[in-house]
Amino acid sequence: MSLLVTGSIGIDTVKTPYGVSENCLGGAAVYFSMAASFFSPVRFVGVIGSDCPFDLEQVFAGRDVDLAGLEVRAQSKTFRWTGTYHEDMDDRTTDCVELNVLAEAPPAVPESFRDSEFVFLANTAPKLQLELLKQIREPVFVAADTMNLWIQDCLDDLKVLLKKIDCLVINEDEVRMLACEHNLIKAARMILDMGPLVIIVKKGKSGSLLCSAAGEKFLLPAYPADNVRDPTGAGDSFAGGFMGYLAQKGETNYETLKAAVAYGTVTASFAINDFSLKGLEAINKSDIEERLEVLRQITRF
Amino acid sequence: MSLLVTGSIGIDTVKTPYGVSENCLGGAAVYFSMAASFFSPVRFVGVIGSDCPFDLEQVFAGRDVDLAGLEVRAQSKTFRWTGTYHEDMDDRTTDCVELNVLAEAPPAVPESFRDSEFVFLANTAPKLQLELLKQIREPVFVAADTMNLWIQDCLDDLKVLLKKIDCLVINEDEVRMLACEHNLIKAARMILDMGPLVIIVKKGKSGSLLCSAAGEKFLLPAYPADNVRDPTGAGDSFAGGFMGYLAQKGETNYETLKAAVAYGTVTASFAINDFSLKGLEAINKSDIEERLEVLRQITRF
Repeated sequence: MSLLVTGSIGIDTVKTPYGVSENCLGGAAVYFSMAASFFSPVRFVGVIGSDCPFDLEQVFAGRDVDLAGLEVRAQSKTFRWTGTYHEDMDDRTTDCVELNVLAEAPPAVPESFRDSEFVFLANTAPKLQLELLKQIREPVFVAADTMNLWIQDCLDDLKVLLKKIDCLVINEDEVRMLACEHNLIKAARMILDMGPLVIIVKKGKSGSLLCSAAGEKFLLPAYPADNVRDPTGAGDSFAGGFMGYLAQKGETNYETLKAAVAYGTVTASFAINDFSLKGLEAINKSDIEERLEVLRQITRF
Repeated sequence: MSLLVTGSIGIDTVKTPYGVSENCLGGAAVYFSMAASFFSPVRFVGVIGSDCPFDLEQVFAGRDVDLAGLEVRAQSKTFRWTGTYHEDMDDRTTDCVELNVLAEAPPAVPESFRDSEFVFLANTAPKLQLELLKQIREPVFVAADTMNLWIQDCLDDLKVLLKKIDCLVINEDEVRMLACEHNLIKAARMILDMGPLVIIVKKGKSGSLLCSAAGEKFLLPAYPADNVRDPTGAGDSFAGGFMGYLAQKGETNYETLKAAVAYGTVTASFAINDFSLKGLEAINKSDIEERLEVLRQITRF
């Protein structure tokens, strides 16, 4: 089934204990699309300024990523993010953000994308996520990400969004903040009461937790990586693998959701192997399948 | 096969966000024995002072725990520990420690225990662990715990111990400290190079990781508890379930080790449900089997 993503395209500068990557390509929609394209064609909606040094056609060459929803605004500047990861690679400091074009109106969803069935609304203001979602006629399964800033500043909009999506994909700190509850299981249940049918809690190197409104749970450790060089984009690569697999299967029952979490986990484990998109660019689908089997083996008893 | 534990018996005062438990029974050997007794008879070696208000015969009534190794020293005082758990229940402050009898010579292993096959050396100075271990004639599988204090202050003794045990069961912070390496997978490999055949890393609410010198790995999330009242003894209850299951099976191959980690995980999840030993006292073996099946279901994809 068709899969659409809306989200950021960024010029990132990333420092980790293993090196520095200056002015490299990043952004949630970019990581998501690269990850999802291993499983399913992707429809891409995002906006850049005229200063963007990257040719996305070339970045996605050989992958089934439709860039009809890529808008270039001549008078605007591209989103920029600079961050530093510390020794505990789950822990990062944002040194500098220039929202630039992300502070403007969102891009339009092209007419040819409006029949999309699977939709991922990457992190942005919930009001913009709602505006983007309104342009999709009859989505089958909508997932969204959010962040601490919107939980603090735009809670009412976020609560409206939560009633319109099927799945929230969110970090553990944000789960606690949104639910005002420290215990993750309780907090997840409280968020399910706000609307979504499924919540996926991303816990970094501690793995992930899926809870459904029907009471189902799934817990998966992260892949035991011994070569993490740059965690940027891990969450969006996870979401890309997850949604890509669901769109490929065209269903969202419990067994498929569990497998999708596992594919998301494995895809993210490659993304963090190297800076920017290099980790995902270096692999093919059979690498993902191989690592999935390892993950199955080392988590089964 | 026979299972022996050596370790502390304590008078604990514990504060958590859910309440206070003053002067309650605690100590590694006590939690371990209670947990292991669901699986296997336990031989108990430990020492208290004459001030100890607890009747261990009564505490373990109806359980197959042989207290022939319990020594009461008339001139000594029992070990005391006072600690506070914070909102993040993995995080605790030790407010007060009185080593008392634990600062003296270790108890003797009774002659009737010296043929023990499975041995758990709960946390104490590695020199004492070595002295205790020397009294066991031909152990089949020896596991030990340790802590930051001994890694800092008694590293040479600890390194001698590591060459004499089969399995180290240790917290993630201690793994990093002992290996001087932040990445857990790399750190575990470095510790395996110091001697043990197996290392089990306890990661609190993030679950546990098993690595073997043969290159096997096993990752298991913690049971998703929504009612954690007192994490004291979680690690020793884990070790008790783990070693109890191994002693019951009488083997330590990869499949058995994985199942033992799962039984340890589930047993610990009951221990933290209530203060002191109440969580373990409230259950029977079928509760453990039931929860193990839930854990299997919610981690399998």
